[in-house]
Amino acid sequence: MSALDGLPIRDELRGKSPYGAPQLDVPVRLNTNENPYPLPEELVARIAARVTEAARGLNRYPDRDAAELRTRLADYLSRTAGHPVTREQVWAANGSNEVLQQLLQAFGGPGRVALGFEPSYSMHALISRGTGTGWLSGPRNDDFTIDTEAAVAAIAQHRPDVVFICSPNNPTGTAVGEETVLALYEAAQAARPERGALVVVDEAYGEFSHRPSLLPLIEGRPTLALSRTMSKAFGAAGLRLGYLAADPAVVDAVQLVRLPYHLSAVTQATALAALEYTDTLLGYVEQLKTERDRLVRELRAMGLEVTESDANFVQFGHFDGAAGSHAVWEALLVHGVLVRDNGVPGRLRVSVGTPEENDAFLDAVRAVTKELKEKSEA
Amino acid sequence: MSALDGLPIRDELRGKSPYGAPQLDVPVRLNTNENPYPLPEELVARIAARVTEAARGLNRYPDRDAAELRTRLADYLSRTAGHPVTREQVWAANGSNEVLQQLLQAFGGPGRVALGFEPSYSMHALISRGTGTGWLSGPRNDDFTIDTEAAVAAIAQHRPDVVFICSPNNPTGTAVGEETVLALYEAAQAARPERGALVVVDEAYGEFSHRPSLLPLIEGRPTLALSRTMSKAFGAAGLRLGYLAADPAVVDAVQLVRLPYHLSAVTQATALAALEYTDTLLGYVEQLKTERDRLVRELRAMGLEVTESDANFVQFGHFDGAAGSHAVWEALLVHGVLVRDNGVPGRLRVSVGTPEENDAFLDAVRAVTKELKEKSEA
Repeated sequence: MSALDGLPIRDELRGKSPYGAPQLDVPVRLNTNENPYPLPEELVARIAARVTEAARGLNRYPDRDAAELRTRLADYLSRTAGHPVTREQVWAANGSNEVLQQLLQAFGGPGRVALGFEPSYSMHALISRGTGTGWLSGPRNDDFTIDTEAAVAAIAQHRPDVVFICSPNNPTGTAVGEETVLALYEAAQAARPERGALVVVDEAYGEFSHRPSLLPLIEGRPTLALSRTMSKAFGAAGLRLGYLAADPAVVDAVQLVRLPYHLSAVTQATALAALEYTDTLLGYVEQLKTERDRLVRELRAMGLEVTESDANFVQFGHFDGAAGSHAVWEALLVHGVLVRDNGVPGRLRVSVGTPEENDAFLDAVRAVTKELKEKSEA
Repeated sequence: MSALDGLPIRDELRGKSPYGAPQLDVPVRLNTNENPYPLPEELVARIAARVTEAARGLNRYPDRDAAELRTRLADYLSRTAGHPVTREQVWAANGSNEVLQQLLQAFGGPGRVALGFEPSYSMHALISRGTGTGWLSGPRNDDFTIDTEAAVAAIAQHRPDVVFICSPNNPTGTAVGEETVLALYEAAQAARPERGALVVVDEAYGEFSHRPSLLPLIEGRPTLALSRTMSKAFGAAGLRLGYLAADPAVVDAVQLVRLPYHLSAVTQATALAALEYTDTLLGYVEQLKTERDRLVRELRAMGLEVTESDANFVQFGHFDGAAGSHAVWEALLVHGVLVRDNGVPGRLRVSVGTPEENDAFLDAVRAVTKELKEKSEA
């Protein structure tokens, strides 16, 4: 019995472990979908300048409404995501995890349920449970796309209060078509005619997609919220800056549950600096997209089954069930390459790194598949 | 009907407004218990240096466990709060609000209740409700101290899962004696013999107290958690850095509910820089304590009723009920001084500012009481 068992924690937490990928000291780390490109030194200097200014007023509470930051995020979306939005339609928090938590506190919670299509970003289920929201797992096709008809039927049957659509989907890389999102949105409203349901489109990897953003769909749909992050496209996982775009009333709603002054002055200052360098950072995104497409091609050329990817990572397999994929995960680790075993049986996920990291990964896969083939023939 | 009313938000949020003091543009702002002293320029430069270093690795996720920061916070407590603690006993989050939210997610939540002694920090009740935890208001004496016997009786009657003890108490400034905390802790455990109850001592203003910290009480008490913040004593309200000290098992428990990578690399870097300047910043605390005692003396000399203060703010009155205190609040505003009306009938709260700000406040109080006296005699 651990000391934790003796504490009056909630029953549903007993025996659980904290979420998080293993952080191992390995030459090539391609396990957490980080952007491999450090921020340019010019931007680092700009961050220092902006933070210096913020630090001079650090004895005061930060702008509770993050007005300047939300304005700049709205400008960014308006310019890059195919639809004009204003500050009143944008909200920011400490990572998209906190954005999702706030949405669930306002629209989910005890007595309500959320539904997502798994495998998907596992925090959707974890944050739902953490906010007392029930969790329902909806279906996917064998190729990890969402079967619109089956999804609509699941919504009609379960009548969820919150629906998560992750596009591009983590960990599979799968983009979701506009027509599917619209069908699911309509189904979710129809299933709850008395008050409607919130549909959250998680576009954390949106900038890496072959397809345009789903942002324009928020127009005229008061319960459709799009969530984004600066962790991936802006190369700022260490910053913890997530945001959402939705009807202004949704932004009003999260303000009823957000902790006051949740977003520090240094976080706001750093994010503002990064937004000044949008074009440079989106240049890195283009390089990563090219490398992503190369990884897909080269893995397929090795005879592997690769899921279509619109993200900065690639799901590959098919290995012999969970045991098979875990054996490959371990063998790659021996070759100095850390990828992610997300628990999708027979599949692994690799983040797109620098060209050199990707070469090292591909070499390791070649070596490992050869080793395993020899072993199975022996 | 507002647009918000049309959304499927939780029923208990309907008609509510976001928490937060009015932010008005006034010459003398003494309403949010901020530290009036900006960080010294040398520390600002150190923050810039540390953040520059962090920004160079910002494409990577931050240290999920904030190991270095927790070590330094443990060192700080060990040195200043009368009891040695280690990193394993310390946890940090985005403001003590997030610390309290995590504690409530692990130890409170649906089907459980928290109890606090009001008037107290209103976020205790708000975060309880935000995590689905029931809220019970316990009694205080007329002088705003906790009546130990009545408090023990309230605990025995209601059997709360979580008990909040705010010392020094916001908004009254009242410190709570060690013997009271111990009696309440024992009562809380006795009321729930099957699993115990969490007692949270909120020491956000601990460094300003005439009394030593209650930190030593965590020894041998696995469900006593002490919460602190860098907002006040470290002059860093804009940083949003709260922390707790407790049994290592409590730290394990909050890690089951914390959002992964909740604390950004820039926040960690900035907090580490500030901790290097502890002695300088605690020097400002001494100045503020001296000024606090002066405010108490001078307000009493004016014939006002002033609550004993161990914090960086002072509660004063007694005005004629809620209408009376609100009239004084408005009159002070006309004189360019913003204080806080916390809803304690007949009382207002003023934060301790610089000597100049405090003089301006005292002059305004003199003028306003004279005006009101003339008006009532007219």
